[in-house]
Amino acid sequence: MGDRDLVLTHDMIVEGVHFLPDDDPADIAWKLVAVNLSDLAGKGAQPLGVLLGYMLGRDEEEDRAFTRGLGEALRTFEVPLLGGDTVAAPAGSRAYGLTAIGQVGRGHAPSRSGAQAGDLLYVTGAIGAGGLGLAMAARRIEGPVAWLDAYRRPRPRLREGQVLGPIVHAMMDVSDGLLIDAGRMAAASGLGVEIDLDAVPLAADAPGDRAARLAAVTAGDDYELLFAAPASAITAPADVPFTAIGRFAVGEGIRLSDRAGMVPLPARLGYEH
Amino acid sequence: MGDRDLVLTHDMIVEGVHFLPDDDPADIAWKLVAVNLSDLAGKGAQPLGVLLGYMLGRDEEEDRAFTRGLGEALRTFEVPLLGGDTVAAPAGSRAYGLTAIGQVGRGHAPSRSGAQAGDLLYVTGAIGAGGLGLAMAARRIEGPVAWLDAYRRPRPRLREGQVLGPIVHAMMDVSDGLLIDAGRMAAASGLGVEIDLDAVPLAADAPGDRAARLAAVTAGDDYELLFAAPASAITAPADVPFTAIGRFAVGEGIRLSDRAGMVPLPARLGYEH
Repeated sequence: MGDRDLVLTHDMIVEGVHFLPDDDPADIAWKLVAVNLSDLAGKGAQPLGVLLGYMLGRDEEEDRAFTRGLGEALRTFEVPLLGGDTVAAPAGSRAYGLTAIGQVGRGHAPSRSGAQAGDLLYVTGAIGAGGLGLAMAARRIEGPVAWLDAYRRPRPRLREGQVLGPIVHAMMDVSDGLLIDAGRMAAASGLGVEIDLDAVPLAADAPGDRAARLAAVTAGDDYELLFAAPASAITAPADVPFTAIGRFAVGEGIRLSDRAGMVPLPARLGYEH
Repeated sequence: MGDRDLVLTHDMIVEGVHFLPDDDPADIAWKLVAVNLSDLAGKGAQPLGVLLGYMLGRDEEEDRAFTRGLGEALRTFEVPLLGGDTVAAPAGSRAYGLTAIGQVGRGHAPSRSGAQAGDLLYVTGAIGAGGLGLAMAARRIEGPVAWLDAYRRPRPRLREGQVLGPIVHAMMDVSDGLLIDAGRMAAASGLGVEIDLDAVPLAADAPGDRAARLAAVTAGDDYELLFAAPASAITAPADVPFTAIGRFAVGEGIRLSDRAGMVPLPARLGYEH
């Protein structure tokens, strides 16, 4: 590993905060893996393995389901389980932790603070399916199963992160909401950012009016990548989908607009925790 | 890191299982660091850093105490906090996870399965203070403050592990109890092990009768190192204290004896979890 940097991430999820008591344990396990691998994707890193901290469930069936979902995620993302710890737990909320280890070419891991004035703001894939899937899971709306799947079984942009990492100025994964995360990148870079709400690529079949677009960019749970780069620099392979949605500028904060003009920022920019 | 192997460990601790609701959060944090670093010590590894999964406490005072104990442990063992996650938690049991990362010379990390017939079984330091300290903390006995300190603020044998790792056949840290862990090393090596109960070095001021010795070798929480090596091979520096307490032999299981003859194995060999 002489020409490699290590990237480490640890996320913890707690019943009643990050998942609900009757969520399928297989989906909980998948998501625990996916959110941590998404952090590695944001650093352009290739995963080397994960360590799991697992609190035994209420019965064997729950443990089996969790183990099944864990195995499905690890096989899908081709990541080995290197170790971890299993603990018995008294009655109460369950909590799980996962550590993911990745590697990236020395000095190639992008930070979130490297955006420069004039850089465009890009996002991979499409935004909004995670939030719509959550609304479906909570039985507030009906919709295509793809939304539910995006919420329950997100797919971190690992390959895209590795392609983009060495050629961008700044990168991070979008997990808490496009607006809040774009604002964090701008603040970390000492800049402001102008975002064209109409340019944000929406999930298939998602409604596209202003209110729906504002919901999509503040809902979170999408696990796409957000990155800053000069317009001329981006020549990624055609199968790495991304869209320019804004521009960094001297200043601070977020300026949001659409075809009708300036859009007041919503009170809640994303998921804060 | 071309000539180094990475060693990773993740231990999780849960209220009501690994610590009690009224334990000092500073001690809980220290122990969380120490038990993970002890796993690294068992592999002869030098710590590179830790990642913390922290569930916010019931009030700010609790969080401050935890942070203080964490800082004390990290400074004492000269290990940086590399990152992690902090989560809000609903009412219920608190749970914390820690990942420790270490490095060791390529191929030098000892396994627990390398003991050979004829090897002696050694233990570093002394055994029993952890268990006696737990009894003091539970107000079942009175004793010297050193026992309580051994229980609340254990000191992993990091330096000793790095010295011994390259020259032993097998090594592991003793955390669940000397008997159960020696039995695990023997089983992993496909051997039996004979242990001289009178040879086990006891903590200062600890009682030395057979019942007290049996309590010491089954109590756990001592965080010493257990290792297998030929009698002739061990020429560690004089300030790495260790004692031969047994011998590996063809066969299986544990044979325990003292000056009075064979000692029946207690029903409980250590802490199982």
